[in-house]
Amino acid sequence: MVIYPNEIENLIEKFNKLPGIGRKTSEKFVFYLLKQKPEFLNEFANSILNLQKNLNFCQICNNFSGIQNLCEICQDTSRNKSQLCIVEDIQDLAVIESTKEYQGLYHVLGGQINPLEGITPEKLNIQKLIDRVKKEKFSEIILALNPDIQGEATSFYLIKLFKPLKIKFTRLARGLPMGSDLEYTDETTLTNALKGRQEII
Amino acid sequence: MVIYPNEIENLIEKFNKLPGIGRKTSEKFVFYLLKQKPEFLNEFANSILNLQKNLNFCQICNNFSGIQNLCEICQDTSRNKSQLCIVEDIQDLAVIESTKEYQGLYHVLGGQINPLEGITPEKLNIQKLIDRVKKEKFSEIILALNPDIQGEATSFYLIKLFKPLKIKFTRLARGLPMGSDLEYTDETTLTNALKGRQEII
Repeated sequence: MVIYPNEIENLIEKFNKLPGIGRKTSEKFVFYLLKQKPEFLNEFANSILNLQKNLNFCQICNNFSGIQNLCEICQDTSRNKSQLCIVEDIQDLAVIESTKEYQGLYHVLGGQINPLEGITPEKLNIQKLIDRVKKEKFSEIILALNPDIQGEATSFYLIKLFKPLKIKFTRLARGLPMGSDLEYTDETTLTNALKGRQEII
Repeated sequence: MVIYPNEIENLIEKFNKLPGIGRKTSEKFVFYLLKQKPEFLNEFANSILNLQKNLNFCQICNNFSGIQNLCEICQDTSRNKSQLCIVEDIQDLAVIESTKEYQGLYHVLGGQINPLEGITPEKLNIQKLIDRVKKEKFSEIILALNPDIQGEATSFYLIKLFKPLKIKFTRLARGLPMGSDLEYTDETTLTNALKGRQEII
């Protein structure tokens, strides 16, 4: 392995910790930054320093809440307070919001149950969710978790937990994504698309 | 597009400027950093701030020289001073050094000639190279530029420039990379491998 001066190695090491970034890509980033003006490096460093400052999380749903205690969605009186959408993280919330299709409330779990990585239900915002579901009268709870093994496990855990409450539980539809090609679609997706087929006439 | 709070958008924007990094990957980086301890963010920011400090470039070859005026290679009296290897950037120098195969000196151009991107010969360390080649008596100049269009153009420019000096000019061998598969090798590489075939018995 090629070793560079300390200043360079230190930063390579940091970039190397980012998800999906290996040593070679880290080197590419550092050599790119070496060619930039000092002002850009200052701004970059400041953006990192400021990231966690002034960033609070909503006491109800765990979304970003800026400098306030509650997020914009929980404060918005025009939202449908009888629907609750459970998401894994804030990015999933943001992407659902961007569709403008959903008008209810959210609850951010902060992860998926994954015992192999030590993420047990206690480590997620599930207690808060239980308290909330017991207190509020939701007519529907939408599970908007990823369609993968951990997402399924988390959904299963939540369904079991809330079964006694007899609330309507739904999950996002499984089927063919737009722009896909039947020929290259995996069997599970195709099975789901067949099972969930919709009447058109 | 999903819009996040300012603190997050600012950093997404910075990561987005790194080579090969799009908006989605930038978001992934920022949300990863959000989950890290403040100490890690401080160290990351400091590594960026310190990157360009205390980092000088060798007055002869343009390699890193730490806090000194000349780099370790130019200062090393045991190196073969009759060979000069011309490379595009310091990363290429480092990777050649890591082979331990070459014992001569280097000259870092700082880029490739690329008129479309406004990189003309004047923007590279070519004047310094001309002065150096006229002063020192090199017995061989090795062109270790990338085997692509810009690399070829740069080599061609340098060969034309130094032709009157009648120095031995070589370039890195073209041929099959280790671990490759003849069946999937492109025609140019295979043509080069045939042209440069080596006698083994």
